[in-house]
Amino acid sequence: MKTVLLTGFEPFNKEPINPAWEAVRALDGWTEGGFHVVARQLPCAFGAAIDTVRAAIEELKPVLVIAVGQAGGRMDLSVERVAINVDDAPIEDNAQRQPVDQPIVAGGPAAYFSTLPIKAIVQALRAAGLPASVSQSAGTFVCNHLFYGLMHLQAKRPKMRAGFVHIPYLPEQAARHPGTASMALGQVVEGLRVAVRVSLDASVDISAGAGATH
Amino acid sequence: MKTVLLTGFEPFNKEPINPAWEAVRALDGWTEGGFHVVARQLPCAFGAAIDTVRAAIEELKPVLVIAVGQAGGRMDLSVERVAINVDDAPIEDNAQRQPVDQPIVAGGPAAYFSTLPIKAIVQALRAAGLPASVSQSAGTFVCNHLFYGLMHLQAKRPKMRAGFVHIPYLPEQAARHPGTASMALGQVVEGLRVAVRVSLDASVDISAGAGATH
Amino acid sequence: MKTVLLTGFEPFNKEPINPAWEAVRALDGWTEGGFHVVARQLPCAFGAAIDTVRAAIEELKPVLVIAVGQAGGRMDLSVERVAINVDDAPIEDNAQRQPVDQPIVAGGPAAYFSTLPIKAIVQALRAAGLPASVSQSAGTFVCNHLFYGLMHLQAKRPKMRAGFVHIPYLPEQAARHPGTASMALGQVVEGLRVAVRVSLDASVDISAGAGATH
Amino acid sequence: MKTVLLTGFEPFNKEPINPAWEAVRALDGWTEGGFHVVARQLPCAFGAAIDTVRAAIEELKPVLVIAVGQAGGRMDLSVERVAINVDDAPIEDNAQRQPVDQPIVAGGPAAYFSTLPIKAIVQALRAAGLPASVSQSAGTFVCNHLFYGLMHLQAKRPKMRAGFVHIPYLPEQAARHPGTASMALGQVVEGLRVAVRVSLDASVDISAGAGATH
Repeated sequence: MKTVLLTGFEPFNKEPINPAWEAVRALDGWTEGGFHVVARQLPCAFGAAIDTVRAAIEELKPVLVIAVGQAGGRMDLSVERVAINVDDAPIEDNAQRQPVDQPIVAGGPAAYFSTLPIKAIVQALRAAGLPASVSQSAGTFVCNHLFYGLMHLQAKRPKMRAGFVHIPYLPEQAARHPGTASMALGQVVEGLRVAVRVSLDASVDISAGAGATH
Repeated sequence: MKTVLLTGFEPFNKEPINPAWEAVRALDGWTEGGFHVVARQLPCAFGAAIDTVRAAIEELKPVLVIAVGQAGGRMDLSVERVAINVDDAPIEDNAQRQPVDQPIVAGGPAAYFSTLPIKAIVQALRAAGLPASVSQSAGTFVCNHLFYGLMHLQAKRPKMRAGFVHIPYLPEQAARHPGTASMALGQVVEGLRVAVRVSLDASVDISAGAGATH
Repeated sequence: MKTVLLTGFEPFNKEPINPAWEAVRALDGWTEGGFHVVARQLPCAFGAAIDTVRAAIEELKPVLVIAVGQAGGRMDLSVERVAINVDDAPIEDNAQRQPVDQPIVAGGPAAYFSTLPIKAIVQALRAAGLPASVSQSAGTFVCNHLFYGLMHLQAKRPKMRAGFVHIPYLPEQAARHPGTASMALGQVVEGLRVAVRVSLDASVDISAGAGATH
Repeated sequence: MKTVLLTGFEPFNKEPINPAWEAVRALDGWTEGGFHVVARQLPCAFGAAIDTVRAAIEELKPVLVIAVGQAGGRMDLSVERVAINVDDAPIEDNAQRQPVDQPIVAGGPAAYFSTLPIKAIVQALRAAGLPASVSQSAGTFVCNHLFYGLMHLQAKRPKMRAGFVHIPYLPEQAARHPGTASMALGQVVEGLRVAVRVSLDASVDISAGAGATH
């Protein structure tokens, strides 16, 4: 039985809830044709987030890791293309740290690309009636930090696929932030099911444009 | 038994579905403490939309009418404040008509304000965890046209309350329009339940700011 | 010699400058083929704004009044279509007043349409290389308040044309509000010249679509 | 006399003009305390854009290269942080090529960071009253392609600083694209002067947050 690791952060930035954790914990224990899912919560803190995912990978030896994070203000399930080697925090993390222009891994590559089949995932999400897109930037806060750290671990485990998906606010959060989009929890969960299935099925990604002029 | 009329338009602008009609028809026949709901579909056509709602009002003699329309690109349940006496169509309606700067009712007032308790509805929607806001403009297409025509009818029926609510795309629509927000059908339906209950309960609206600087 | 009155508000909402006043005062004294321009500053305060414009109209007997206001966040010169009879202030005015859902003129019409040739102005602005659009809502703060009050005065002076134009932040303001658009003062001034000329030339407006689906 | 190379693309995507080229050519020949500026136009084509900048660098041996590109829809002068090693073209380039998910340099690093003092530039631009921000993604079209290619060349020329700045539409372009922001040519030119001076003066960048949560 193959193991799939899904991670979601604890709440941050004064939110009482994190939709990423709510979504992945709803999938904890999900078992289907040859794989089962383990969900783990990560601290929203520089350093500790990577330490926690590293320990989980060493413990669980997953074939697939999808890290999920809240992107308040985004409209859809956005599948991240690339993690960059810099922390530049616009707000404090949950440990009251706010690094500016620090490398995540000193001497590490400037960036890592997701090894998920990001185009195939977006195509499958849209076919399932779920709004989705490829994102060219995961920001420079804890989400990008964790994504970069995860891909740095993945680089030494070529049989493990890994990547990051940003999700919108839940409706109950958007109700407190007028002018922001939202997505129902059930649809985020369904979207993650699609992402897991496609990631395990697709040996290589499809060729489909999802770029940006700027 | 009091009658509540909910209306939703047929699909327009090349969409195969109209979330407004999907939502209101899900409430057709809903009965609760002293009222029951009748849902009617309206043609997305200048003139015919008002004719159809007029006939339904004469037939059903509702105490409350909430007209619902799709606003592709909006983020939340937006409760309209005001209808203006002008048709200025950016696209053709379903009868291939595209009026420019024509009055809806020649000699009619420049505008009508909703007689729904719009602030109380928005407050209740947010309290229910549903993203909502007051909107200062329903546009100048068939939605505003119907809204104005409805309020013109309401002006002679002071015991009948009436107004208009714009709703986002469904997720399956937003999946075909990358970069747009969406709301799950279940939440739109739940939001309309809230709007109906508050409209029947509130004898007067609450005093709560929901304005815009521009 | 015909008189054209241009008004701009004093700074508000903690801004040190109001681009509307900066633009109109640059045109004070402008004289061209049969008309001359007088610019007046208005207090950004409910009531006092209308009182001031009324006094200026009685003094100057202008054939044309264009009121100009700052719309921080908008992208272009937006020519307002309609003023509605409600004050619903999201922030305090400069006299620390914040009315909620109060009529501007008790018993007044629900709305007034601009009597400027709004379509012809937008067409001429674009032809001059200046970004412009028709706006369906002037908000519910002091700008809409003044616009409504101005049109209420205009209703009794059918030979006087009047309307309202919202303008973006100046670049120096946008530099303090990251993520907002701006327009250079010189272009706002040029745009107002175009609006004045078109308003005096056009006996009737052109027929050109500038509507919104919602 | 030190040489500064500024590049701007030829028009693309059906635009008759490219504000990047208009801005940099206005600075061609600018000489000030120890440096002079040479402006060169680049083809908006994968491959050829890099070939052209390489030839210019070999010819001119500049100490500083700032490549400038049009970002229609952006609001301000956005100083790019990072170029990624992928072409994923949402539209055809001027040679009718539209690569999907191709590396720019096979075997090259996943990304290069700008070696301009990006935080100091943004701070100086804002201090000069010009809207500016750090951008975390230059997209995946010819702009990112050229930026990556430029930084790949820079990697072997450690004494040469290089980077990329995206600029908004000119007003005359935004007038044809309603709903988009713009910036006057004079302000773009002034902004590039600031960027050049700061890049030559600052031996190291300042420490100032300019990150994004997502």
